[in-house]
Amino acid sequence: MTTHTRPRASRSTNEPAVTWSGGKEGHVRMIDQTLLPGELRIIDVRTVDELGAAIYRLAVRGAPAIGMAAAYGVLLGVQGLAGAPPAEVVARARETARVLGGARPTAVNLFVMLERMVAQADSRARTATSGDEVVAALFALAESIAAEIADECRRMGEIAVELLSEGAGVLTHCNAGALATVGIGTALAPIYVAAERGMKVRVFADETRPLLQGARLTAWELMRAGIDVTLLTDNAAASLMASGEIDIVFVGADRIARNGDVCNKIGTYGVAVLAQEHGIPFYAIAPLSTFDPGAATGAEIPIEKRLANEVTHGLGGPIAPEGVSVYNPAFDVTPAAKVTGLVCERGLIEAPTTERVETFLRRAGRL
Amino acid sequence: MTTHTRPRASRSTNEPAVTWSGGKEGHVRMIDQTLLPGELRIIDVRTVDELGAAIYRLAVRGAPAIGMAAAYGVLLGVQGLAGAPPAEVVARARETARVLGGARPTAVNLFVMLERMVAQADSRARTATSGDEVVAALFALAESIAAEIADECRRMGEIAVELLSEGAGVLTHCNAGALATVGIGTALAPIYVAAERGMKVRVFADETRPLLQGARLTAWELMRAGIDVTLLTDNAAASLMASGEIDIVFVGADRIARNGDVCNKIGTYGVAVLAQEHGIPFYAIAPLSTFDPGAATGAEIPIEKRLANEVTHGLGGPIAPEGVSVYNPAFDVTPAAKVTGLVCERGLIEAPTTERVETFLRRAGRL
Repeated sequence: MTTHTRPRASRSTNEPAVTWSGGKEGHVRMIDQTLLPGELRIIDVRTVDELGAAIYRLAVRGAPAIGMAAAYGVLLGVQGLAGAPPAEVVARARETARVLGGARPTAVNLFVMLERMVAQADSRARTATSGDEVVAALFALAESIAAEIADECRRMGEIAVELLSEGAGVLTHCNAGALATVGIGTALAPIYVAAERGMKVRVFADETRPLLQGARLTAWELMRAGIDVTLLTDNAAASLMASGEIDIVFVGADRIARNGDVCNKIGTYGVAVLAQEHGIPFYAIAPLSTFDPGAATGAEIPIEKRLANEVTHGLGGPIAPEGVSVYNPAFDVTPAAKVTGLVCERGLIEAPTTERVETFLRRAGRL
Repeated sequence: MTTHTRPRASRSTNEPAVTWSGGKEGHVRMIDQTLLPGELRIIDVRTVDELGAAIYRLAVRGAPAIGMAAAYGVLLGVQGLAGAPPAEVVARARETARVLGGARPTAVNLFVMLERMVAQADSRARTATSGDEVVAALFALAESIAAEIADECRRMGEIAVELLSEGAGVLTHCNAGALATVGIGTALAPIYVAAERGMKVRVFADETRPLLQGARLTAWELMRAGIDVTLLTDNAAASLMASGEIDIVFVGADRIARNGDVCNKIGTYGVAVLAQEHGIPFYAIAPLSTFDPGAATGAEIPIEKRLANEVTHGLGGPIAPEGVSVYNPAFDVTPAAKVTGLVCERGLIEAPTTERVETFLRRAGRL
């Protein structure tokens, strides 16, 4: 057993999952989430390649946090170009977006934020007389994206908290908390809002193999916040639901199709089937930036296949025979028919269908 | 990472999970399954307390293998009593059964085999003139139990193989293979029979957290036998079923109630719900000794709650925050309504109900 720093019980320090440090010549700082819960280490990321690697190796993860990291990545990409012609800044922003867009395929927020940054550079470059103006516009947008994500998390929390009753048992899968965003989380946002309001809520966290985001991250951040959390292996969720302990399921999302199909961490679909079997409402909570108007159904969402060793070398050593074949998709798709509702910062879409999601996106100006 | 012995690819050596070595003053030998797949170590167990500990720490596991180990445990208990009065052998057998009966609560085979051994001692003692005769009768019974288990495995394999078609994708959970028995397994028996007949079958093994019997044991024994096996995390089973790769589910059982409810390794119930959702037949394969006529339904089966550290200290180190609450039942109950059929050594009970199971048990002389 390796020695490890004990998780602190205090809720006073709230390091953001990812942030920008310093001015234009600054850099990205992030919690290296691969080291939690043993160690809370903040790492400095100074190049686009380092940032892409940090996203790929899951030092930063969670759809909104990945989107944020990618936006900051564009800032890293255009560093040193303040004196260059505007077109050069645009070209560099575009190239950076191309590189970072390859880090992970599923969470759509990554692409949305990269596109917004490139569009911003493009648009500002049309009237700019120096690269400096374009760079400044990119900084302003990144800053506003950070505020926007935090604000969306808060709103989702305030909408979804209404689904909770005093003493509710809430099952969640993976980590869709503060660590997955730059705010109070998506699926966990209503938990934090409930706690602020003095409500008692009991959270049950699936450990979420292979990378254990539930055990390592969700349990950690909720315990730090003094919230009642119980950890279980993923395969114990069915027995837990049958025992009557679970009143509602809250999960996040990596991409939501136009028909309401929810792509999220592997195992989410199984949880949804089990919830329906036990008559337990199942909600996905995610900002509008997670909706992909370009995907008619979940079948159009690319599912990242990750390396076999995530499964075969669980935690510090081999746990399976050398050379065994492995099925290791990082995500699955929950059909809309299994989803009681989708919560985003603009409200709740009950029993989602293509018509309902499209109406909602249209009203929000996203379609 | 610790160094480890590579699993051998050969199928030539088939160490039984548990066996008796030597004569009356011999001892129990078993594979220490906690060390697989890294190391194939055979351990010698010479006392009842050591045997109880080996069962509790899962060096030997799997309902039939536990039953076998317990029967051998009674032999350890009566060692040195050949010269004692018959009643003393009986008393010692009874005391040994009491001790070993506390090792694990769920698998009924443990109790069935202990009762059979005690009944044998009791019955023989009525006419015996020396302890030696009672001890000899116990040896004969243990030997016959070993042959019986091997024979039952073979029969179950021959019955269940008829449920397989060429190229079938079979999902299994936990390990109900050779390592769980002293034969070719229960759930895996039809896989071995299929392989002997030259059929191609693709096995998908749930890793089975927390103790990873699927990853460590099922994958290992099937690879050694040259059978196509793919490992997945438990939470990937839903996505795999949705992909159309799975044609049938085979699991073992730790105890089957009179109404057909199947108690088996935690996660089995979830697999059954998912199988039904996807229209995939779900079979539990277990010998008649796993049926408990004393349990009217699964609700009457005691579910072992194991230690939190099995979950929090997955594999070589902490993977969750210190002090986190944990829900860690070792088993769950699959209601009979989710079970397509029960296969035992006497045949197949389709769509089990109390009436069908009782009729079957009555015909088999078990009710």
